[in-house]
Amino acid sequence: MHQFLTKCDEALTEISSQGRYRRFVALEKLTDRFPYYSVTMEGRTRDILVWSTNDYLAMGTDPQVIEASADAARRYGAGAGGTRNIAGSSPLHVALEEELADLHGKDAALLFTSGYVSNQATLTAILNSLPDWHVFSDAQNHNSMIVGIKGGKTATVHIFKHNDMADLERLLAEAPAEAPKLIVFESVYSMDGDIAPLEQICDLADRYNAMTYLDEVHAVGMYGPHGGGVSERDGVADRITIIEGTLAKGFGCHGGYITGDFKVLDYIRSVAAGFIFTTALPPPTVAAALTSIRLLKQDSTRRTKLFERAATLKAKFLAAGLPVMDSNSHIVPLMIGDAAKATEISMRLIREFGMYATPINYPTVPRGTERLRFTPGPKHTDEMMNNLVTALQQILLPAETQTA
Amino acid sequence: MHQFLTKCDEALTEISSQGRYRRFVALEKLTDRFPYYSVTMEGRTRDILVWSTNDYLAMGTDPQVIEASADAARRYGAGAGGTRNIAGSSPLHVALEEELADLHGKDAALLFTSGYVSNQATLTAILNSLPDWHVFSDAQNHNSMIVGIKGGKTATVHIFKHNDMADLERLLAEAPAEAPKLIVFESVYSMDGDIAPLEQICDLADRYNAMTYLDEVHAVGMYGPHGGGVSERDGVADRITIIEGTLAKGFGCHGGYITGDFKVLDYIRSVAAGFIFTTALPPPTVAAALTSIRLLKQDSTRRTKLFERAATLKAKFLAAGLPVMDSNSHIVPLMIGDAAKATEISMRLIREFGMYATPINYPTVPRGTERLRFTPGPKHTDEMMNNLVTALQQILLPAETQTA
Repeated sequence: MHQFLTKCDEALTEISSQGRYRRFVALEKLTDRFPYYSVTMEGRTRDILVWSTNDYLAMGTDPQVIEASADAARRYGAGAGGTRNIAGSSPLHVALEEELADLHGKDAALLFTSGYVSNQATLTAILNSLPDWHVFSDAQNHNSMIVGIKGGKTATVHIFKHNDMADLERLLAEAPAEAPKLIVFESVYSMDGDIAPLEQICDLADRYNAMTYLDEVHAVGMYGPHGGGVSERDGVADRITIIEGTLAKGFGCHGGYITGDFKVLDYIRSVAAGFIFTTALPPPTVAAALTSIRLLKQDSTRRTKLFERAATLKAKFLAAGLPVMDSNSHIVPLMIGDAAKATEISMRLIREFGMYATPINYPTVPRGTERLRFTPGPKHTDEMMNNLVTALQQILLPAETQTA
Repeated sequence: MHQFLTKCDEALTEISSQGRYRRFVALEKLTDRFPYYSVTMEGRTRDILVWSTNDYLAMGTDPQVIEASADAARRYGAGAGGTRNIAGSSPLHVALEEELADLHGKDAALLFTSGYVSNQATLTAILNSLPDWHVFSDAQNHNSMIVGIKGGKTATVHIFKHNDMADLERLLAEAPAEAPKLIVFESVYSMDGDIAPLEQICDLADRYNAMTYLDEVHAVGMYGPHGGGVSERDGVADRITIIEGTLAKGFGCHGGYITGDFKVLDYIRSVAAGFIFTTALPPPTVAAALTSIRLLKQDSTRRTKLFERAATLKAKFLAAGLPVMDSNSHIVPLMIGDAAKATEISMRLIREFGMYATPINYPTVPRGTERLRFTPGPKHTDEMMNNLVTALQQILLPAETQTA
């Protein structure tokens, strides 16, 4: 037997013994019942209330978005049929890029097959453009950015403490004055739900002549008057070199993108392997995203509702004595601190209470900070929240501390 | 100005001066007119006959595939709403993975957001599983495999001459006997259109205890009695450790996958960053792909027609004295040998003759081997081919050698 098969066996046994073996629950998202999903478990099919979707604003089930998808399939087909260069570019792709550039107040946008690929491909391309970049990367940056940065062959990487401006400035000051510099960070950090001080980062970037790369995947569609993200809300979009986002979360569709200066994006377009050598996004996805962005640009109702719902759930968790983590975003994480326990709570929630929240374990979060992560949206009602609180109290809290 | 902006300027000027600056032609693929696309150029909209799609079998415009996409959008929404682990797995995803495993006669399959990501993420995960892998990689492997292999931190990489079994055996024999070994190759090489000797590679793998990783992206749907690729056609699928494929070419949709032994795939599923940290494929794409695979499994009509059409175009090119490259696949490349010339011919084809074939320049092919690449499908008629030959003769050949 090849030694790799032995390795697979050993690794899977170890992962299981740490309680972090992942069983994907097959959740059938149904547009007419969202956020209830149909789930078949142990021979039984029932509706499960899902608390962990990243379709934060329920745009993936919006009738206009759905019709845009269905209509594009009928007009243009199920797939793009080629890379952007090999017969895969369409007027739809061009229109979506223009819409995204406009959303962020930038010259241009570039579509990728996912947010993951947009981060990885763009950062690697930038860091291999010149020798000896110095990169300043937030300690909690997403895996896609870390992998993209590691692709830079001659870059020196400095990890600054999460959202810590003093640490970032110290590292910037220590780096060679003449070296090309890039600060890489997110706006909303999705596992803790906290938000970066964008204006302060821009100030430091100006002071040290650094470029800025901002991941807004957990913010686009949701923050800012038009859904342009925290950079729009904070009025600093024009100070960020590249704003990266996703079509798969707030916009409810699929794919990723970057926006920025025309020349910069034309360069990325011309050299980034993960952009060049892959089939363009399929027309139904592109059309759906275009509709979703336009709806969210012109109407803040869903955004307002999202933040009201998140605040309400946080307040209910706090009042019930549940270990809700401090968060100033729409994300509501509950600290558990152990992988096996997080998995068990999640299984009990679904089996005993018909509700689903994903256990978040290593490698998504550091060991010892395992959690359940709740993302209440516009369609999660007070009654649903009350039922969730009751369920969590029964599972998590000793009987005597429970509220009535 | 940040030195990166200067670099962008310089690089773009250089790319342009080499004649390989890419202008994406916005081609509106219309399901009811395929392979004609609607194109607006210089203020004028007209139907352009496209010769370069990778929707080889026109499955992306098949009515059943389209209805599956539209129906899934209505039922399940425009996006998956999460990673496979975070509420993004659905029964549809599970069904598609089962269908793919069955297609290749394997235990299991794993979906990725693209063929690019499936290669990159899987190869990097394998090569970081154990120290000191020895990898044997065909010299013409796709960028996604090269990048995936480079992600292996301690792997020693041996590049064997394209499809050269003597060279591969020499390298295998020279590597340490006890080292874990992996041979990485494609079946159909899409730029030259030639096919690897799969059985001989499997024999060498057996002899030297090497694992095999086969990219079938330009073969699935098209080769083998059920569209299982060249490995099905040649009866060697059970001898390949991992067969990788795409849903975006022969199947006409979007996304990538790997198939193999259950334990191996369970390991990849548990560790591969490009699988874990990204939103699952959207339901319309998954449903469309499922329909497309099933249609192609049960009916060879489209496959038979594809090969007849490719043979006919090759014969017409040869008879007309055009520089068609030797190819034993469905791909028909015409050697040009110069980037600026390839681009110019492509532009003349579209402007003067209303036909489109993508110029293939560096970095997709080596410099000096620039080409036009034709992928005739079931819907390209004899008349279309005759018009193409006439156009290419007028552009490429001195007047006196043209046929009547």
